[in-house]
Amino acid sequence: MKQVIIIRTDLKMGKGKIAAQACHASIESYKRTTPEKVKKWENEGSKKIILKVENLEELMEIYEALKKTKIPHYLVRDAGHTQLPPGTITALGIGPDDDEKIDKITKHLKLL
Amino acid sequence: MKQVIIIRTDLKMGKGKIAAQACHASIESYKRTTPEKVKKWENEGSKKIILKVENLEELMEIYEALKKTKIPHYLVRDAGHTQLPPGTITALGIGPDDDEKIDKITKHLKLL
Repeated sequence: MKQVIIIRTDLKMGKGKIAAQACHASIESYKRTTPEKVKKWENEGSKKIILKVENLEELMEIYEALKKTKIPHYLVRDAGHTQLPPGTITALGIGPDDDEKIDKITKHLKLL
Repeated sequence: MKQVIIIRTDLKMGKGKIAAQACHASIESYKRTTPEKVKKWENEGSKKIILKVENLEELMEIYEALKKTKIPHYLVRDAGHTQLPPGTITALGIGPDDDEKIDKITKHLKLL
């Protein structure tokens, strides 16, 4: 079991901004996960993997693929208080869910 | 209401590593928060602020101060699968809780 967080690199966000978007994706996707999956994930150490995409199109391809599955996920739109225009899509949280299920959709992506 | 995540900068973690530690701090501190506080925080937009400390001593001072309060918090020890020795303290998650309560303890810290 793992949770995957995907970050857009083309927005040139700073480290703190990236971390905040990742936390938002992480908690919101976690909240959409069944208690059974959450428990299994926690028992295995609550693994979290941070990956990157180079643009919005690449992120939305993954989002569209996820919508055809039962994998919990959450697309982050920035509130726009700092650095970015309001509503900018910055990150995508996936899972926790089975490694193999998530890998089918994200295995071509590199670590941030 | 806000959640604050504090990251150690002296460990020279990469962006992805920082984001993963922040997510861990964020979810674990969130899980230790009462449903009433969580609801209030979510209604106000789930604000997350990422701050930095320059070393472990600075982080532990804040941790010790938090232990004397009722503010929910979680100290992250890295599992050590990558980059760091197992058990390295990397981050601290605080809240969500009232801005003023958290500010009393963290207001001297700078944004990451």
